[in-house]
Amino acid sequence: MFNFDFYNPTRIFFGKGRLDVIDKNVPANARVLITFGGGSAKKSGLIDKVKTHLGNRKVLEFGGIEPNPRYETLMKAAEVVRNENIDFILAVGGGSVIDGTKFICLASHYKGDARDLLKHGFAPITSQVVEKVVPFGSVLTLPATGSEMNNGAVISYEHGKFPVMSELAYPKFSILDPVVTFTLPKIQVANGVVDAFVHVAEQYITFPADAKVQDRMAEGILQTLIEIGATTVNEPENYAARANHVWSATMALNGIIAVGVPQDWATHMIGHELTALFGIDHGQTLAIVYPSVLDVCRRQKRTKLLQYAERVWNITTGSDDEKIDLAIKKTREFFESLGIKTRLSEYGVTVDKIPAVVEQLKAHGLTALSETGKITLEVSQKILENAL
Amino acid sequence: MFNFDFYNPTRIFFGKGRLDVIDKNVPANARVLITFGGGSAKKSGLIDKVKTHLGNRKVLEFGGIEPNPRYETLMKAAEVVRNENIDFILAVGGGSVIDGTKFICLASHYKGDARDLLKHGFAPITSQVVEKVVPFGSVLTLPATGSEMNNGAVISYEHGKFPVMSELAYPKFSILDPVVTFTLPKIQVANGVVDAFVHVAEQYITFPADAKVQDRMAEGILQTLIEIGATTVNEPENYAARANHVWSATMALNGIIAVGVPQDWATHMIGHELTALFGIDHGQTLAIVYPSVLDVCRRQKRTKLLQYAERVWNITTGSDDEKIDLAIKKTREFFESLGIKTRLSEYGVTVDKIPAVVEQLKAHGLTALSETGKITLEVSQKILENAL
Repeated sequence: MFNFDFYNPTRIFFGKGRLDVIDKNVPANARVLITFGGGSAKKSGLIDKVKTHLGNRKVLEFGGIEPNPRYETLMKAAEVVRNENIDFILAVGGGSVIDGTKFICLASHYKGDARDLLKHGFAPITSQVVEKVVPFGSVLTLPATGSEMNNGAVISYEHGKFPVMSELAYPKFSILDPVVTFTLPKIQVANGVVDAFVHVAEQYITFPADAKVQDRMAEGILQTLIEIGATTVNEPENYAARANHVWSATMALNGIIAVGVPQDWATHMIGHELTALFGIDHGQTLAIVYPSVLDVCRRQKRTKLLQYAERVWNITTGSDDEKIDLAIKKTREFFESLGIKTRLSEYGVTVDKIPAVVEQLKAHGLTALSETGKITLEVSQKILENAL
Repeated sequence: MFNFDFYNPTRIFFGKGRLDVIDKNVPANARVLITFGGGSAKKSGLIDKVKTHLGNRKVLEFGGIEPNPRYETLMKAAEVVRNENIDFILAVGGGSVIDGTKFICLASHYKGDARDLLKHGFAPITSQVVEKVVPFGSVLTLPATGSEMNNGAVISYEHGKFPVMSELAYPKFSILDPVVTFTLPKIQVANGVVDAFVHVAEQYITFPADAKVQDRMAEGILQTLIEIGATTVNEPENYAARANHVWSATMALNGIIAVGVPQDWATHMIGHELTALFGIDHGQTLAIVYPSVLDVCRRQKRTKLLQYAERVWNITTGSDDEKIDLAIKKTREFFESLGIKTRLSEYGVTVDKIPAVVEQLKAHGLTALSETGKITLEVSQKILENAL
């Protein structure tokens, strides 16, 4: 097991009817900004309910944070925060709204050009860089990204997606009420399952580090997602399935399975370029890229791929390569069983578009991806071709 | 899955050579009290190393916190804290030292009679009860209780052991260096494995709550402990085994597997009385009581016992009762394989002593134990007789 640090101070309120904790957990005299996305939280009446729980506090709203939240949009919110002396933000939404809100919290009182904050990559932004941060909480509406219990965000600017990490960006609290997510469109639920699945896999199918509890936990989340995947997509009001979906997605990326182990993230990086260039949903890009990454990188991932085949899919017969083939096939079939297409060509992306993707990876310095750094641009190209 | 709250702000520094984080994580001008136990941390030179990392800070020492830390001892430390204006405590030890330190932190500036703090049971002590709390960190020397990453303590007073819970009592940080634990006596390592194992089991072998990730995680920790148990006991300098032992013990009781599920704790409650009356080590009491609890309560725990049998021990043939019998037998054999005796009689406790144990349970109000409250005094008596 590698040496590691772990810290996660986000307070979780999970279950039915938890909005009543808002009153106790938002400072009494706070001037609150509610951030949200395209308007479904507004239409469904959720924003109004949230407001009821904010009582007499001064409340402003900022809607329109888009999927893959954009720098320009978030800077408009930051202006509202400054002009209106906002001292608490309540994000009501999924990963994009929460990611965006993290950036608003960091950027509102940043003294320099806030685009600087996009240049830190995976190096955490400290209180020496951002002296004053607006605290925030979240009401999760989409189980997928895990943003509700971590300190990371991905922000879109021009043609790139930029990771932003900071201990200052943990939500003070997150409310995870599975019922709130019942009205989601099927495709978003399915994307959410894939997103959580690939989050776990990218922290697990790497090289062995003898981190036994972490491995078992990762396998447990994957098994759970496989078990409840079809139900949470096809029976939107099945509370038990959705509750397990929500908690799996949160546990997938709250840091706890990441401790002491290598991490991959090549699929996310390549997927980000597909979203930026072709507008393919984040979850869908993962379903396209991940089976291909496993196939192309089967040598560097051999031991863990075999462990994955055996422990997650109960594959115990055949040669090693047959086991790995079958595990990859089952992974792809699982994504497809949720209604997610797993081939680039099914999204209209043809072989001639691949050089542009590789070009973007190069432009963003993503030339040595994965847990070993061995996914060069050539390997990325192979992965994309293999995903056609 | 039940509704739940989760919050755990303890910062973990795990791995080889982590004492160097002390300097950054103890406030710069703090007056520090180092708390420790019987002196092995002193003799081994660990305390001196810790002091080096505290640099020019004023440092005092308080040794002699006993296993099953006693109220009177801790109140002496609280006096030192007050008299010497201590503003940070560094606990160097195992569960008893860390538990004791939590109580010192809560009691030092408590305005009433500190025995009040023993009366809250599992109801958390809030900042309305204790206004000023001394912050603390820990350097863990014994992987067992999980106290290094939770907010609970068990304090001995007169003939009882009293739980004390408070969000104010989370360690600010804990340093988990497996190498520091290499010099532990075998029996303490074995006790630690049993303690962690039973912590997990008491949160898992209850009744089904369809909390799939929590179940898989619990099973994963149990499987890990089974896998590394003999090695961590018999090869004290096997870093890989000890690292997995340490992290299993921490994960066993940091709250993460407890969310949304019923909890038992009958074995701990009955075990506490055995420690108080006969001086049997905590881990040993669990090894005595737990197999008997599973046997006597096989009806109320039936579904989860079968799940435990199948997923943890790979028992897939036989009638349900045969499966359960075999799972209990394997549990007992596992404890014994670590060198821990699992029968009361092997510790010199005979049938005539059982009424005194039941009497103590009654005196402490422990008349409706376990996840269902159905372990009455009569059932506890049966459990003890069955453990002879």
